[in-house]
This record gives sequence, structure tokens and C-alpha cells, in this order.
Amino acid sequence: MKALVYESIGKKALCERPAPQILETTDAIIRVTKTTICGTDLHILKGDVQSCKPGRILGHEGVGIVDRVGSAVVTFRVGDHVLISCISACGKCAYCKNKMYSHCINGGWILGNTIDGTQAEFVRIPYADTSLYPIPEGSDEDALVMLSDILPTGFECGVLNGKVEPSATVAIIGSGPIGLAALLTAQLYSPAEIIMVDLADNRLEVAKRFGATAILNSSKVDVVAEIMKLTNQQGVDTAIEAVGIPATFEICEQIIGPGGRIANVGVHGTKVDLHLENLWDRNITITTGLVDTASTSMLLKLVQSKKIDAKTLITHRFKLENVLDAYTTFEDAAKTNALKVLIET
Amino acid sequence: MKALVYESIGKKALCERPAPQILETTDAIIRVTKTTICGTDLHILKGDVQSCKPGRILGHEGVGIVDRVGSAVVTFRVGDHVLISCISACGKCAYCKNKMYSHCINGGWILGNTIDGTQAEFVRIPYADTSLYPIPEGSDEDALVMLSDILPTGFECGVLNGKVEPSATVAIIGSGPIGLAALLTAQLYSPAEIIMVDLADNRLEVAKRFGATAILNSSKVDVVAEIMKLTNQQGVDTAIEAVGIPATFEICEQIIGPGGRIANVGVHGTKVDLHLENLWDRNITITTGLVDTASTSMLLKLVQSKKIDAKTLITHRFKLENVLDAYTTFEDAAKTNALKVLIET
Repeated sequence: MKALVYESIGKKALCERPAPQILETTDAIIRVTKTTICGTDLHILKGDVQSCKPGRILGHEGVGIVDRVGSAVVTFRVGDHVLISCISACGKCAYCKNKMYSHCINGGWILGNTIDGTQAEFVRIPYADTSLYPIPEGSDEDALVMLSDILPTGFECGVLNGKVEPSATVAIIGSGPIGLAALLTAQLYSPAEIIMVDLADNRLEVAKRFGATAILNSSKVDVVAEIMKLTNQQGVDTAIEAVGIPATFEICEQIIGPGGRIANVGVHGTKVDLHLENLWDRNITITTGLVDTASTSMLLKLVQSKKIDAKTLITHRFKLENVLDAYTTFEDAAKTNALKVLIET
Repeated sequence: MKALVYESIGKKALCERPAPQILETTDAIIRVTKTTICGTDLHILKGDVQSCKPGRILGHEGVGIVDRVGSAVVTFRVGDHVLISCISACGKCAYCKNKMYSHCINGGWILGNTIDGTQAEFVRIPYADTSLYPIPEGSDEDALVMLSDILPTGFECGVLNGKVEPSATVAIIGSGPIGLAALLTAQLYSPAEIIMVDLADNRLEVAKRFGATAILNSSKVDVVAEIMKLTNQQGVDTAIEAVGIPATFEICEQIIGPGGRIANVGVHGTKVDLHLENLWDRNITITTGLVDTASTSMLLKLVQSKKIDAKTLITHRFKLENVLDAYTTFEDAAKTNALKVLIET
């Protein structure tokens, strides 16, 4: 089968690989129909993700058709239409019992990381019963690909951890796909204001269309001063960090109001300065998190009922044989204005 | 009247001062019967607290007798026995309505900071109706002095923010009065383990007596390695930072388990390194906070019912005329083994 393989730092290739086999009775083999590329895949290619070794098929998002199931799989049958979660959950360990599937001791984020992923014609999904979701008939596959990772990540790590609530003032630093996913799902809780920040005017325009009440280009204005002005010098209730660099995290520290929540969503490669000399008495909360995908079923219903228009995040489409073009388009987002690139097998 | 006055950085004196007068109709004047010294007073004397200017009478803890009340005070009458809260709360602003009295826009922590404090024969308490607590007859005054600040701070900023729960593993970094207050109140929630860390064997011995299940002297052992060993390399559920320096905050970052909570209680004078490169995917929560004293009534009942033996924190006693000796004893805690020093007028 065709598969996108991480070969070495900075190097990837479209390769021929043997199709995956059932290894455990709880596995399912899925024929991938649609997948996409995540910012985390680019991190892997830069060598930032130590756990992912060269030779790995990348990708942790996708939808497809069940091709084979292990003997212990009881929920899915051959031919079922399924959504693949970026998190594999055994459902039995202490973390899974505590709904913290991201830290499942037998799974977690392994797909396209420590086991082969979804940017291929077929993929092996461990713990199929607890790591796949049935897709209702008549669903729009394109939209559902956004549910493997990006929507639950923006929602759980940004909106839920940041405790967005009715009438709140929210700032989202970073208007890439994850920031926009947080923007789309933040509106489920009716905040009064959502201020979006980015370096790219194009992304901010998208944010405006998606429901931002204010947009700020951090290359053009003093974002901290502007946000303090917009909030009568009170600061925001929730600041969502959706970039993953020290500068954007420190913006969050400067704009957070007393009692506010900084929800970190970004993948960070270095430490940041935490200004406890200013924050120790501010009664703030900072959260970090890998997505648990505990909200996947809920988001699936919201997408089905058109409360969230997830498809709007897709800007480009490619066939799997052109996956390298898809990567180039995604990597050059500043030029191509790419958000999510859909890859069809 | 006699009063302990902050004169300049590093300098304090016992002075004669005019007794305070009612300035607002919501004020009460309290004849202080007992007060104490807080670590924060030492921070002020070092010049760390910019809001507190030379000339200020220090102190934000105490009990006493109502001497006079303003015309709008309805809850207290002359002669009432009262507990003074370190937080003055107007009860009417948005923060007060939201139970975040620490950030009351008309009050907050002002006592012994921006207005004269309790280390004196008399003190003016603004918003008396919402900043004083009636003391039930027959109460032990000594124990109640611990309720002005230290017990609610350890409880709210440490135990509640850190979400200590039954069967949890808790580490408290710092076994000074605040760390010990957290230790005493953490036991209300029946954690399985409470590991206390300090540099001083004496304080660790006290911690052991107060209910610690393990004690670690950070000058003698590798605390991080020991705690990871004690937790089967899982890390702790709650880490309470009760010192206020970068080194102790970073211990918390290293010992926190997935899904865990770091509750900062310490007053920090400098920034700390937040290792998001390790923590971004750990699903942790970090909290900061000045005490709201929302739990004061609850703690008062617990002290009354002997569920918390707050008096055990008191190691030394002085008369107000010897308050400078009290400061010396408190400042030299490493030699004197002082925890809380009680000052009687």
C-alpha cells in the first residue's frame, strides 16, 4: 500500500509498504478513506517528538471503513464506517477509568507516533472498541476528519480547560487550525467577546467569519495594550494559547484577569518564563493537556446537527498519491493560506 | 497607642501613634487583644511589597473586642468579640459577588499594607460587616488568631486549589507555618499520603507530628527522586508550593503526575522557569492565589469542634511592648524553631 513515511529529520517520502495485519485480538484494520496533516506531524519532521522514530507512517486523523477486526472486537464489523480517534484508549487502565484517555498506559497518542498512522491506505487501530467511533449514515466525511483531533483538542484543551462561560471575555492567541477549532467550539458557551490574535491577516479574516468579535494582528499592534483596552484594563477571563512558543504564552500571562484561566493548547519545545512575581496573587489557573477525546461523541452530534461547521476548516484537497504536495501546501500556510488539507485515498 | 511601624527597608520600630478613628460609616474600631507576625510582614520589611509604604503599622491578623462602630455597621456592636480577616471585603463589587474577596476593588489585602494594621492596640477595620467574624463564646482566642490568614491561606490556596481528595498523594514543599496549615487542612479530605519537604529537620519533625506520612529534608536527599520512588514513578496528584522561590516551584513541576495539580501558595519575588516542553501534554493544572477567606466560617467551626488543632502552630508568646523581640524570634526561625509567635496587647 501507499504510505507517507517519516524517513529522517526534515525528510519524508511516499513509500510502498505492506498493509498492516491484526496483531492483537482487540485490533481493527481500517481502510482509510480520508485523512489530513496536523501541525504535530510537522513537529515530528523537525525532530521535536523524540518518541517518533524514522520509518514511521505518520498521521493520527482520519475516517474509513472497517476492513478486518480481531476476535475480541465486539462493537464494529467489517464494512462499518468509522471515525478514527487520535487517542488509542484501552478503556481498562486507571487513566482510562478516570476519563484521561490521553494518558492511557497501553495507548494514548501512539498513532503516527509509536505505531504506524493514518496517512496510508490502511491502518491498524488497537483497542478498536474504545478508539473508533461509528459514523451515522448520511454523514459528511470531510467534516468528520476534523473530529479525530483538531476539534476535540481545541474544545477540551482550550474551551473546557479554560472554562469558557456565558458572558466571558476570551482571547485566543493563534488563529491556526487549533485556534480556530477553539473559536468554533468556544461559541457553544456564549462568551460575550472572543478576541483572536495572529500574525497573518488572512487567518484573522477567517476568524472574523468564524465568529471572532475582535481581531488583532500581533505584528502590527501591541496586543497586550489593545486587549487591556478592550477589557477596561481588567484582562480576559480565559486566554487560550494555541501556538506553542514562549512569546505567545507570555501574552497570555499579561492579559489574564484576576480569577482568569490560561489554557495551554500549543505544543511547546522549550521552557517559558512564568512571571509568578506578578501572578502569585492573581488567583489564576493555568492548564496543560493532551486531548483526551472524551468529547468526541458530543462533538460528533454537534457536527451532525450543524451547530458546528467543521468543514469550513478545510481549505485544500489532495489525493494520497499527491500527499507530498499536501505537505508543501500545509507547510507553506503563510503563502497558501492553508488551514486543514484533506487527503483522499 | 503602641504600634509596630515599618519605617524603611529593613527597619521597624515600636512607636506611639494616635488611636485610629472611624473614617467611614462602615468602619469599626477594634481593640486588638491578640495578633501575630506573618512571613508577608518580613517581605514588606525587605521592600518586596511595593504597595506598602514606610510609616505603615504592620499586621493583618488578630482577634479583639469591638470598641466603636460606624453608623452603617449592623452586624457588630461595641463589646463584641471578633476575629479580624486579613482580607477586607466590601461585599458589593463584582469580585465580592463572585466570592473572590481577595480582589475586592474597594478592599482586598489592604490591612497592614495600604492601611494601618493589627500590630497595635487598636485597628480600624473597613467594611466591618463583611470583614469581621463573630467569635462564639468560650472560644480559645489563641487558636482563632491562626484563622485570620494562615489557615484559610493554606486551605484555600493549597488544599482547595490543589483539589486534595480521598486517596490522593499530596506533596507539600515547605513546612513553615503555611505549609503546616496546608498539612492540617489537607487531612480534612483524607488523602492517602502527605509528603512534607523542608530544609529544617525541626519543622519536618513537627510535620510528622501533624500527620505527614513521609518527610524529606531537601538539603540531605534528592527530593524529586525520592518522591518519584514513593509514588512508583507516577508523581503526585497534588503538589503544594509553600515557599515562594524558583527552586521549590520547579520541584513541583518535576514531581507532578499526569492530571495533577500544582497549587502555588508561596509569595514569589521573581519569575520561575515553567518547563512546558515537559508539561504541555501532562494534563496538569497550576493555580495561584491570594486567599479569599471564603472558608473562614467553615474553618472556625472546625477549630471549635476540635477537628483542627490550630493552636499547635503557636510556638512563642510575647507582649506587644516586646514585639521587636517577637520579630527577632520569628526572623531567626532556623535557630529559634519558631512557627507562629503570638503577640498579646
